[in-house]
Amino acid sequence: MIDRSEAPLGDANLTELVDAFFRSSFVTDNAVITEAVRRMLAAGGKRLRPRLTLLAAQANGADPRDHLPLATYMELIHVGTLIHDDVVDRADTRRGINATAVDFGNRVSVLAGDYLFAWIFKNVTARYPHPVPHLLATTLADITDGEVLQHRAVGDLSLSVAGYVDIAIKKTASLFAASAECGALMSGATALRVKALRDFGLYYGIAFQMLDDLLDYTANEAELGKPVGGDLAERKMTIPLVHALAGDNGDLRAELTRFFAGEASGSERVSDLVASVGARGGFAKSRDAVIAYVERAKMSLAPLGTAPARAELNALADVLARESTKRTR
Amino acid sequence: MIDRSEAPLGDANLTELVDAFFRSSFVTDNAVITEAVRRMLAAGGKRLRPRLTLLAAQANGADPRDHLPLATYMELIHVGTLIHDDVVDRADTRRGINATAVDFGNRVSVLAGDYLFAWIFKNVTARYPHPVPHLLATTLADITDGEVLQHRAVGDLSLSVAGYVDIAIKKTASLFAASAECGALMSGATALRVKALRDFGLYYGIAFQMLDDLLDYTANEAELGKPVGGDLAERKMTIPLVHALAGDNGDLRAELTRFFAGEASGSERVSDLVASVGARGGFAKSRDAVIAYVERAKMSLAPLGTAPARAELNALADVLARESTKRTR
Repeated sequence: MIDRSEAPLGDANLTELVDAFFRSSFVTDNAVITEAVRRMLAAGGKRLRPRLTLLAAQANGADPRDHLPLATYMELIHVGTLIHDDVVDRADTRRGINATAVDFGNRVSVLAGDYLFAWIFKNVTARYPHPVPHLLATTLADITDGEVLQHRAVGDLSLSVAGYVDIAIKKTASLFAASAECGALMSGATALRVKALRDFGLYYGIAFQMLDDLLDYTANEAELGKPVGGDLAERKMTIPLVHALAGDNGDLRAELTRFFAGEASGSERVSDLVASVGARGGFAKSRDAVIAYVERAKMSLAPLGTAPARAELNALADVLARESTKRTR
Repeated sequence: MIDRSEAPLGDANLTELVDAFFRSSFVTDNAVITEAVRRMLAAGGKRLRPRLTLLAAQANGADPRDHLPLATYMELIHVGTLIHDDVVDRADTRRGINATAVDFGNRVSVLAGDYLFAWIFKNVTARYPHPVPHLLATTLADITDGEVLQHRAVGDLSLSVAGYVDIAIKKTASLFAASAECGALMSGATALRVKALRDFGLYYGIAFQMLDDLLDYTANEAELGKPVGGDLAERKMTIPLVHALAGDNGDLRAELTRFFAGEASGSERVSDLVASVGARGGFAKSRDAVIAYVERAKMSLAPLGTAPARAELNALADVLARESTKRTR
């Protein structure tokens, strides 16, 4: 029983609200799929996408508890892409636990993701008016399009910052943008506020992806739950590398060309290259970019005025800036 | 330019109409995905699902050419599941050509299927009123649920005919049912006719799956484009096997238990078992079931009266009955 007598919920309570809702209310007709999704949810995650939905609703004076189902669909789209990523990348672990593909087999993972997407659209098309179902479908198309583009950019040393941002918008920021937008739409926000909250989600999402990329280079293995420099080892063109190459005199490019061609490999080689990326300003420039997108996100919220939840949204963005600074000291 | 001055189009023209529409109008934002889908379409197929949509529209006096986009979404849902099946089953070939997964890699195949599903829902949610998007999402959930159930039933010698039919309805018949239903809905049919056409699609779809299963046992390798008895070798519980086990004194069950446990294998072993399934009435009973579902499909159309396209729908169903008879002579 949710106590509705309290004062407006702070963001800190929203994560627990979302998790409690998942525990009490998430079930599909297919037991295998329900179990696969529950495992993915139990493995952790900060529920950032549903929190954006709930904060966007709160920013329009709504009770976030009235928008929990909508918020959870946003997290479930994310979960569906994670389940398929496990197949795609043949990852053995995710967030330190066994990947769905390892526990259930590739076969069931592909089907579990498909079922989950279909289940989401089945529910969303029954419960929400246009354009909510359309926004979700467009977002899922963007995410997969972005992943295909990222896949094609693997090992492409000529990828520009703009090219990287295009991919990050599709692959990551689109879902943050849609999460905030749908929360705003369904709480009856004005068009100006819907746009403000969508933009917040978009810029927040770009900063989020950039920080994620930066952590892959600058965190330690225990924090990451996977080896440092994993993206580099997989020849992924993430933001620290793109920035380092932009400030390169040609040496790093030559080193990377050899490394990507498999002529020099091993974990020692990876840590040398990680250091080279840092030495060429790859980390500092990535941090600056995170901070710049965090500022854009916060500025987007101007139309909210003194609306509730604005401070919580700002705080959420500040976490990214703070973390990126901490990692580049 | 489509000439609209002609008399009502017969079913024979609808396949070409659908293919021409695909050639002239199918394009997504992602070139890799457009190419993957075009290849799958070029590899063949009878376009049965879009033909049901168009015939259902025609049965309500509509010009099928006005419902081509809707019809093609039905085929594309089917194509999306085929692209993912290639990953799931690690199939090397489909319809005699390289599978998407072989040409593009598992990674792109998973993403291509996801993008295609998202692209379909993005378009359908923008173009069609409720409940069309909801019906499509429900159908995709059914298809994947059915595939998970089929996967779980692999090697399960206790699967009943009713259990088999439940899976066939979800995995196969649901899309035929939705294809006919959507064509009827969007051409403004009465509720009675929508139900009639949906039921036709459902029973047609069950018969279609049963015939497909029967062909795997009784056609030859050249016709199938894959080895005879492939389903048996993969331990799939298809209708000839389910019927044969129902009429078994225990010998076949014992043989299969050894074969499924890998204690006896090889292609010779498969052809012996195929013969055993036939000897226990597995083929004759499957044929009878196909014929019975074809009759139910045709009877469902009673509310159409003398509507145009009824004869074409009946003829489509009769093909299944005729083919099943030819294969069990």
